[in-house]
Amino acid sequence: MKKIVVIGATGTLGQAVVTALKARHQVIEVGATRGQYRADITDVASVEKLFGEIGNVDGVVTTTGKLHFGPLTEMTADQFWVGLRDKLMGQINVVLAAQRFVNDGGSFTLTSGIVGDEPIRDGANATTVNLALEGFVRGAAIELPRGIRINLVSPTVLEESMESYGPYFRGFEPVSAAKSAMAFVRSVEGAQTGRVYRVGY
Amino acid sequence: MKKIVVIGATGTLGQAVVTALKARHQVIEVGATRGQYRADITDVASVEKLFGEIGNVDGVVTTTGKLHFGPLTEMTADQFWVGLRDKLMGQINVVLAAQRFVNDGGSFTLTSGIVGDEPIRDGANATTVNLALEGFVRGAAIELPRGIRINLVSPTVLEESMESYGPYFRGFEPVSAAKSAMAFVRSVEGAQTGRVYRVGY
Repeated sequence: MKKIVVIGATGTLGQAVVTALKARHQVIEVGATRGQYRADITDVASVEKLFGEIGNVDGVVTTTGKLHFGPLTEMTADQFWVGLRDKLMGQINVVLAAQRFVNDGGSFTLTSGIVGDEPIRDGANATTVNLALEGFVRGAAIELPRGIRINLVSPTVLEESMESYGPYFRGFEPVSAAKSAMAFVRSVEGAQTGRVYRVGY
Repeated sequence: MKKIVVIGATGTLGQAVVTALKARHQVIEVGATRGQYRADITDVASVEKLFGEIGNVDGVVTTTGKLHFGPLTEMTADQFWVGLRDKLMGQINVVLAAQRFVNDGGSFTLTSGIVGDEPIRDGANATTVNLALEGFVRGAAIELPRGIRINLVSPTVLEESMESYGPYFRGFEPVSAAKSAMAFVRSVEGAQTGRVYRVGY
Protein backbone atom coordinates (compact mmCIF):
# COMPACT_ATOMS: atom_id res chain seq x y z
CA MET A 1 0.00 0.00 0.00
CA LYS A 2 1.35 3.38 -1.06
CA LYS A 3 0.38 6.84 0.18
CA ILE A 4 -0.77 8.78 -2.88
CA VAL A 5 -1.99 12.36 -3.06
CA VAL A 6 -4.38 13.23 -5.89
CA ILE A 7 -4.59 16.96 -6.61
CA GLY A 8 -7.72 17.72 -8.59
CA ALA A 9 -9.52 14.91 -6.79
CA THR A 10 -12.95 16.50 -7.06
CA GLY A 11 -12.89 16.77 -10.87
CA THR A 12 -14.33 14.20 -13.27
CA LEU A 13 -10.97 12.62 -14.05
CA GLY A 14 -9.65 13.04 -10.50
CA GLN A 15 -12.61 11.18 -8.99
CA ALA A 16 -12.02 8.25 -11.32
CA VAL A 17 -8.31 8.20 -10.46
CA VAL A 18 -9.11 8.28 -6.73
CA THR A 19 -11.54 5.37 -7.14
CA ALA A 20 -8.99 3.30 -9.08
CA LEU A 21 -6.12 3.96 -6.67
CA LYS A 22 -8.21 3.35 -3.53
CA ALA A 23 -8.46 -0.33 -4.42
CA ARG A 24 -4.93 -0.83 -3.13
CA HIS A 25 -3.63 2.46 -1.69
CA GLN A 26 -4.11 5.19 0.86
CA VAL A 27 -5.35 8.15 -1.19
CA ILE A 28 -5.29 11.75 0.00
CA GLU A 29 -7.80 13.83 -1.94
CA VAL A 30 -7.02 17.48 -2.65
CA GLY A 31 -9.38 19.91 -4.35
CA ALA A 32 -9.16 23.60 -5.17
CA THR A 33 -12.35 24.54 -3.32
CA ARG A 34 -13.69 21.20 -2.02
CA GLY A 35 -12.26 17.89 -0.79
CA GLN A 36 -10.45 16.47 2.22
CA TYR A 37 -7.60 18.98 1.69
CA ARG A 38 -7.51 22.26 -0.26
CA ALA A 39 -4.73 23.79 -2.31
CA ASP A 40 -4.37 26.45 -4.98
CA ILE A 41 -1.57 24.98 -7.06
CA THR A 42 -1.01 28.22 -8.98
CA ASP A 43 0.45 29.45 -5.66
CA VAL A 44 3.69 27.74 -4.58
CA ALA A 45 3.12 28.70 -0.94
CA SER A 46 -0.21 26.87 -0.99
CA VAL A 47 1.47 23.71 -2.34
CA GLU A 48 4.17 23.91 0.33
CA LYS A 49 1.54 24.34 3.04
CA LEU A 50 -0.32 21.28 1.72
CA PHE A 51 2.74 19.02 1.88
CA GLY A 52 3.68 20.45 5.26
CA GLU A 53 0.31 19.13 6.46
CA ILE A 54 0.21 15.73 4.74
CA GLY A 55 3.93 14.94 5.04
CA ASN A 56 5.86 12.54 2.85
CA VAL A 57 4.07 10.54 0.16
CA ASP A 58 4.89 7.78 -2.32
CA GLY A 59 3.12 9.37 -5.22
CA VAL A 60 1.66 12.65 -6.44
CA VAL A 61 -1.01 12.77 -9.13
CA THR A 62 -2.30 16.02 -10.63
CA THR A 63 -5.50 16.02 -12.69
CA THR A 64 -6.17 19.71 -12.86
CA GLY A 65 -5.73 22.77 -14.97
CA LYS A 66 -7.54 25.52 -16.81
CA LEU A 67 -6.88 26.40 -20.43
CA HIS A 68 -8.13 29.15 -22.71
CA PHE A 69 -10.11 28.10 -25.76
CA GLY A 70 -10.73 30.72 -28.46
CA PRO A 71 -9.78 31.77 -31.99
CA LEU A 72 -6.09 32.55 -32.47
CA THR A 73 -6.89 35.66 -34.52
CA GLU A 74 -8.59 37.25 -31.49
CA MET A 75 -6.46 35.76 -28.72
CA THR A 76 -4.80 38.19 -26.32
CA ALA A 77 -1.61 37.54 -24.38
CA ASP A 78 -3.65 37.71 -21.15
CA GLN A 79 -5.91 34.92 -22.40
CA PHE A 80 -2.87 32.89 -23.39
CA TRP A 81 -1.45 33.28 -19.88
CA VAL A 82 -4.47 31.41 -18.45
CA GLY A 83 -3.17 28.01 -19.51
CA LEU A 84 0.46 28.84 -18.71
CA ARG A 85 -0.36 30.01 -15.21
CA ASP A 86 -2.90 27.31 -14.39
CA LYS A 87 -2.55 23.94 -16.19
CA LEU A 88 1.18 24.34 -16.93
CA MET A 89 2.75 26.14 -13.96
CA GLY A 90 0.16 24.74 -11.56
CA GLN A 91 1.39 21.21 -12.20
CA ILE A 92 5.05 22.29 -12.40
CA ASN A 93 4.72 24.14 -9.07
CA VAL A 94 3.59 20.87 -7.54
CA VAL A 95 6.68 19.03 -8.77
CA LEU A 96 9.12 21.79 -7.81
CA ALA A 97 7.65 22.19 -4.32
CA ALA A 98 6.76 18.56 -3.58
CA GLN A 99 9.89 16.75 -4.81
CA ARG A 100 11.49 16.81 -1.35
CA PHE A 101 8.31 15.28 0.15
CA VAL A 102 8.30 12.28 -2.20
CA ASN A 103 9.80 9.08 -0.82
CA ASP A 104 12.63 7.24 -2.61
CA GLY A 105 11.25 5.46 -5.66
CA GLY A 106 8.04 7.50 -5.57
CA SER A 107 6.38 9.09 -8.57
CA PHE A 108 4.73 12.11 -10.10
CA THR A 109 1.96 11.69 -12.67
CA LEU A 110 0.77 14.81 -14.48
CA THR A 111 -2.09 15.31 -16.96
CA SER A 112 -1.98 16.78 -20.46
CA GLY A 113 -4.47 15.92 -23.24
CA ILE A 114 -4.88 14.83 -26.85
CA VAL A 115 -4.88 18.41 -28.17
CA GLY A 116 -1.11 18.42 -27.69
CA ASP A 117 -0.82 15.87 -30.49
CA GLU A 118 -3.99 16.68 -32.44
CA PRO A 119 -4.51 20.43 -32.79
CA ILE A 120 -8.10 21.67 -32.97
CA ARG A 121 -9.73 25.00 -33.85
CA ASP A 122 -9.54 27.45 -30.89
CA GLY A 123 -6.95 25.17 -29.28
CA ALA A 124 -3.58 26.95 -29.66
CA ASN A 125 -3.32 27.52 -25.91
CA ALA A 126 -4.16 23.88 -25.18
CA THR A 127 -1.69 22.49 -27.73
CA THR A 128 1.06 24.72 -26.33
CA VAL A 129 0.42 23.83 -22.70
CA ASN A 130 0.03 20.09 -23.31
CA LEU A 131 3.31 19.85 -25.24
CA ALA A 132 5.01 22.03 -22.64
CA LEU A 133 3.99 19.47 -20.02
CA GLU A 134 5.46 16.72 -22.21
CA GLY A 135 8.68 18.75 -22.33
CA PHE A 136 8.71 19.22 -18.57
CA VAL A 137 8.26 15.50 -17.94
CA ARG A 138 10.99 14.68 -20.48
CA GLY A 139 13.39 17.11 -18.83
CA ALA A 140 12.52 16.30 -15.21
CA ALA A 141 12.71 12.52 -15.70
CA ILE A 142 16.49 12.60 -16.11
CA GLU A 143 17.05 14.88 -13.13
CA LEU A 144 14.74 13.73 -10.34
CA PRO A 145 16.85 12.17 -7.57
CA ARG A 146 16.42 9.01 -5.44
CA GLY A 147 14.67 6.97 -8.13
CA ILE A 148 11.69 9.30 -8.24
CA ARG A 149 9.81 8.83 -11.50
CA ILE A 150 7.65 11.26 -13.50
CA ASN A 151 5.12 10.48 -16.23
CA LEU A 152 2.35 12.19 -18.14
CA VAL A 153 -1.14 10.93 -18.98
CA SER A 154 -2.62 12.41 -22.16
CA PRO A 155 -6.26 11.34 -22.53
CA THR A 156 -8.55 12.08 -25.43
CA VAL A 157 -11.82 13.89 -24.66
CA LEU A 158 -13.74 12.23 -21.83
CA GLU A 159 -17.22 10.80 -22.34
CA GLU A 160 -18.24 12.76 -19.26
CA SER A 161 -17.06 16.04 -20.87
CA MET A 162 -18.74 15.62 -24.26
CA GLU A 163 -21.69 17.82 -23.32
CA SER A 164 -19.44 20.85 -22.83
CA TYR A 165 -16.45 20.03 -25.10
CA GLY A 166 -18.13 17.90 -27.80
CA PRO A 167 -18.21 20.64 -30.46
CA TYR A 168 -14.40 20.93 -30.32
CA PHE A 169 -13.97 17.18 -30.77
CA ARG A 170 -16.10 16.08 -33.72
CA GLY A 171 -14.79 12.74 -34.98
CA PHE A 172 -12.84 12.06 -31.78
CA GLU A 173 -13.94 8.90 -29.99
CA PRO A 174 -14.35 9.77 -26.31
CA VAL A 175 -13.18 7.50 -23.49
CA SER A 176 -14.57 7.21 -19.99
CA ALA A 177 -12.82 8.80 -17.03
CA ALA A 178 -12.59 5.29 -15.55
CA LYS A 179 -10.62 4.00 -18.56
CA SER A 180 -8.35 7.07 -18.50
CA ALA A 181 -7.74 6.46 -14.80
CA MET A 182 -6.08 3.14 -15.62
CA ALA A 183 -3.13 5.01 -17.20
CA PHE A 184 -2.57 6.82 -13.91
CA VAL A 185 -2.50 3.47 -12.12
CA ARG A 186 0.08 2.20 -14.64
CA SER A 187 2.23 5.24 -13.97
CA VAL A 188 1.93 5.01 -10.16
CA GLU A 189 2.45 1.25 -9.88
CA GLY A 190 4.72 0.71 -12.90
CA ALA A 191 8.44 1.29 -13.29
CA GLN A 192 8.67 3.66 -16.24
CA THR A 193 9.76 7.28 -16.17
CA GLY A 194 9.67 10.12 -18.69
CA ARG A 195 6.78 8.34 -20.36
CA VAL A 196 3.63 9.78 -21.99
CA TYR A 197 0.61 7.45 -21.62
CA ARG A 198 -1.74 8.32 -24.50
CA VAL A 199 -5.30 7.16 -23.81
CA GLY A 200 -7.96 6.68 -26.48
CA TYR A 201 -6.00 8.19 -29.40
CA MET B 1 11.80 40.73 -52.73
CA LYS B 2 9.93 40.36 -49.44
CA LYS B 3 9.88 42.69 -46.45
CA ILE B 4 11.06 40.61 -43.48
CA VAL B 5 11.47 41.71 -39.87
CA VAL B 6 14.03 39.85 -37.78
CA ILE B 7 13.51 40.24 -34.02
CA GLY B 8 16.67 39.30 -32.18
CA ALA B 9 18.74 40.61 -35.08
CA THR B 10 21.72 41.56 -32.95
CA GLY B 11 22.24 38.06 -31.50
CA THR B 12 24.58 35.42 -32.91
CA LEU B 13 21.83 33.51 -34.70
CA GLY B 14 19.89 36.65 -35.63
CA GLN B 15 22.91 38.22 -37.34
CA ALA B 16 23.37 35.10 -39.46
CA VAL B 17 19.67 35.06 -40.40
CA VAL B 18 19.82 38.74 -41.37
CA THR B 19 22.87 38.10 -43.56
CA ALA B 20 21.21 35.14 -45.29
CA LEU B 21 17.90 36.94 -45.92
CA LYS B 22 19.54 40.18 -47.13
CA ALA B 23 20.74 38.40 -50.24
CA ARG B 24 17.25 38.68 -51.71
CA HIS B 25 15.03 40.63 -49.29
CA GLN B 26 14.46 43.87 -47.46
CA VAL B 27 15.33 43.05 -43.85
CA ILE B 28 14.26 45.13 -40.87
CA GLU B 29 16.52 44.46 -37.89
CA VAL B 30 15.08 44.62 -34.39
CA GLY B 31 17.08 44.23 -31.19
CA ALA B 32 16.19 44.44 -27.52
CA THR B 33 18.72 47.14 -26.71
CA ARG B 34 20.55 47.74 -30.01
CA GLY B 35 19.75 47.69 -33.74
CA GLN B 36 17.80 49.70 -36.32
CA TYR B 37 14.59 49.23 -34.26
CA ARG B 38 14.10 48.27 -30.59
CA ALA B 39 11.41 46.16 -28.98
CA ASP B 40 10.90 44.33 -25.70
CA ILE B 41 8.86 41.34 -26.88
CA THR B 42 7.93 40.33 -23.34
CA ASP B 43 5.72 43.43 -23.48
CA VAL B 44 2.80 43.24 -25.95
CA ALA B 45 2.54 47.05 -26.10
CA SER B 46 6.16 47.24 -27.25
CA VAL B 47 5.47 44.72 -30.05
CA GLU B 48 2.38 46.67 -31.16
CA LYS B 49 4.36 49.91 -31.16
CA LEU B 50 7.05 48.26 -33.31
CA PHE B 51 4.60 47.09 -35.97
CA GLY B 52 2.83 50.44 -35.87
CA GLU B 53 6.17 51.96 -36.92
CA ILE B 54 7.31 49.45 -39.53
CA GLY B 55 3.85 48.65 -40.98
CA ASN B 56 2.90 45.51 -42.86
CA VAL B 57 5.50 42.86 -43.58
CA ASP B 58 5.76 39.59 -45.53
CA GLY B 59 7.58 37.70 -42.83
CA VAL B 60 8.44 37.81 -39.14
CA VAL B 61 11.43 35.92 -37.74
CA THR B 62 12.17 35.70 -34.01
CA THR B 63 15.60 34.51 -32.84
CA THR B 64 15.45 35.50 -29.24
CA GLY B 65 14.67 34.27 -25.79
CA LYS B 66 16.10 33.72 -22.34
CA LEU B 67 15.86 30.42 -20.47
CA HIS B 68 16.81 29.33 -16.98
CA PHE B 69 19.47 26.63 -16.66
CA GLY B 70 19.92 24.97 -13.28
CA PRO B 71 19.35 21.74 -11.33
CA LEU B 72 15.71 20.70 -11.05
CA THR B 73 16.11 19.83 -7.38
CA GLU B 74 16.89 23.46 -6.56
CA MET B 75 14.73 25.17 -9.17
CA THR B 76 12.19 27.72 -7.94
CA ALA B 77 8.95 28.64 -9.67
CA ASP B 78 10.34 32.16 -10.21
CA GLN B 79 13.35 30.72 -12.05
CA PHE B 80 11.04 28.55 -14.13
CA TRP B 81 9.01 31.61 -15.10
CA VAL B 82 12.10 33.12 -16.81
CA GLY B 83 11.79 30.90 -19.86
CA LEU B 84 7.99 31.06 -19.95
CA ARG B 85 7.95 34.85 -19.82
CA ASP B 86 10.85 35.41 -22.17
CA LYS B 87 11.56 32.74 -24.81
CA LEU B 88 8.02 31.33 -24.83
CA MET B 89 5.60 34.24 -24.33
CA GLY B 90 8.02 36.68 -25.98
CA GLN B 91 7.73 34.83 -29.28
CA ILE B 92 4.01 34.13 -28.81
CA ASN B 93 3.37 37.82 -28.05
CA VAL B 94 4.93 38.61 -31.42
CA VAL B 95 2.58 36.24 -33.26
CA LEU B 96 -0.55 37.37 -31.39
CA ALA B 97 0.20 41.07 -31.85
CA ALA B 98 1.75 40.95 -35.35
CA GLN B 99 -0.67 38.62 -37.17
CA ARG B 100 -2.77 41.51 -38.48
CA PHE B 101 0.38 43.20 -39.85
CA VAL B 102 1.46 40.17 -41.91
CA ASN B 103 0.50 40.24 -45.59
CA ASP B 104 -1.51 37.43 -47.20
CA GLY B 105 0.72 34.40 -47.69
CA GLY B 106 3.33 35.76 -45.28
CA SER B 107 5.06 33.78 -42.58
CA PHE B 108 6.22 33.54 -38.99
CA THR B 109 9.40 31.64 -38.12
CA LEU B 110 10.14 31.09 -34.44
CA THR B 111 13.17 29.55 -32.72
CA SER B 112 13.32 26.65 -30.26
CA GLY B 113 16.38 24.36 -29.78
CA ILE B 114 17.59 20.79 -29.60
CA VAL B 115 17.02 20.53 -25.82
CA GLY B 116 13.31 20.14 -26.60
CA ASP B 117 14.06 16.75 -28.14
CA GLU B 118 17.24 15.88 -26.25
CA PRO B 119 16.96 16.70 -22.54
CA ILE B 120 20.17 17.68 -20.74
CA ARG B 121 21.11 18.14 -17.08
CA ASP B 122 19.90 21.54 -15.76
CA GLY B 123 17.66 21.82 -18.83
CA ALA B 124 14.08 21.22 -17.59
CA ASN B 125 13.09 24.81 -18.27
CA ALA B 126 14.61 24.68 -21.78
CA THR B 127 12.96 21.36 -22.68
CA THR B 128 9.58 22.67 -21.47
CA VAL B 129 9.81 25.96 -23.36
CA ASN B 130 11.12 24.44 -26.59
CA LEU B 131 8.34 21.83 -26.74
CA ALA B 132 5.78 24.49 -25.80
CA LEU B 133 6.91 26.45 -28.86
CA GLU B 134 6.47 23.32 -30.98
CA GLY B 135 2.94 23.05 -29.57
CA PHE B 136 2.19 26.68 -30.32
CA VAL B 137 3.35 26.36 -33.93
CA ARG B 138 1.33 23.14 -34.34
CA GLY B 139 -1.79 24.81 -32.98
CA ALA B 140 -1.37 28.16 -34.74
CA ALA B 141 -0.62 26.63 -38.16
CA ILE B 142 -4.21 25.41 -38.58
CA GLU B 143 -5.74 28.71 -37.47
CA LEU B 144 -3.73 31.52 -39.04
CA PRO B 145 -5.86 33.21 -41.72
CA ARG B 146 -5.09 34.43 -45.28
CA GLY B 147 -2.51 31.76 -46.05
CA ILE B 148 -0.15 32.95 -43.35
CA ARG B 149 2.30 30.19 -42.45
CA ILE B 150 4.16 29.48 -39.20
CA ASN B 151 7.21 27.28 -38.65
CA LEU B 152 9.80 26.58 -35.99
CA VAL B 153 13.57 26.23 -36.32
CA SER B 154 15.19 24.00 -33.70
CA PRO B 155 18.98 24.18 -34.00
CA THR B 156 21.50 22.19 -32.01
CA VAL B 157 24.10 24.14 -30.02
CA LEU B 158 25.86 26.77 -32.15
CA GLU B 159 29.61 26.66 -32.75
CA GLU B 160 29.65 30.33 -31.73
CA SER B 161 28.06 29.45 -28.34
CA MET B 162 30.32 26.54 -27.39
CA GLU B 163 32.51 28.67 -25.16
CA SER B 164 29.60 29.44 -22.84
CA TYR B 165 27.28 26.44 -23.38
CA GLY B 166 29.80 23.72 -24.25
CA PRO B 167 29.71 22.00 -20.83
CA TYR B 168 25.95 21.36 -21.23
CA PHE B 169 26.45 19.81 -24.67
CA ARG B 170 29.23 17.23 -24.41
CA GLY B 171 28.93 14.85 -27.34
CA PHE B 172 26.68 17.20 -29.31
CA GLU B 173 28.16 18.25 -32.66
CA PRO B 174 27.73 22.03 -32.93
CA VAL B 175 26.66 23.78 -36.14
CA SER B 176 27.49 27.27 -37.29
CA ALA B 177 24.96 30.08 -37.02
CA ALA B 178 25.29 30.45 -40.81
CA LYS B 179 24.18 26.84 -41.38
CA SER B 180 21.28 27.25 -38.91
CA ALA B 181 20.23 30.40 -40.75
CA MET B 182 19.51 28.33 -43.86
CA ALA B 183 16.52 26.72 -42.11
CA PHE B 184 15.03 30.17 -41.54
CA VAL B 185 15.43 30.90 -45.24
CA ARG B 186 13.65 27.61 -46.07
CA SER B 187 10.79 28.60 -43.78
CA VAL B 188 10.50 32.16 -45.15
CA GLU B 189 10.80 31.28 -48.84
CA GLY B 190 9.25 27.80 -48.77
CA ALA B 191 5.60 26.75 -48.72
CA GLN B 192 5.34 24.58 -45.60
CA THR B 193 3.46 25.40 -42.42
CA GLY B 194 3.32 23.85 -38.95
CA ARG B 195 6.79 22.46 -39.63
CA VAL B 196 9.74 22.03 -37.25
CA TYR B 197 13.10 22.40 -39.03
CA ARG B 198 15.64 20.49 -36.94
CA VAL B 199 19.22 21.61 -37.65
CA GLY B 200 22.33 19.59 -36.81
CA TYR B 201 20.59 16.85 -34.80
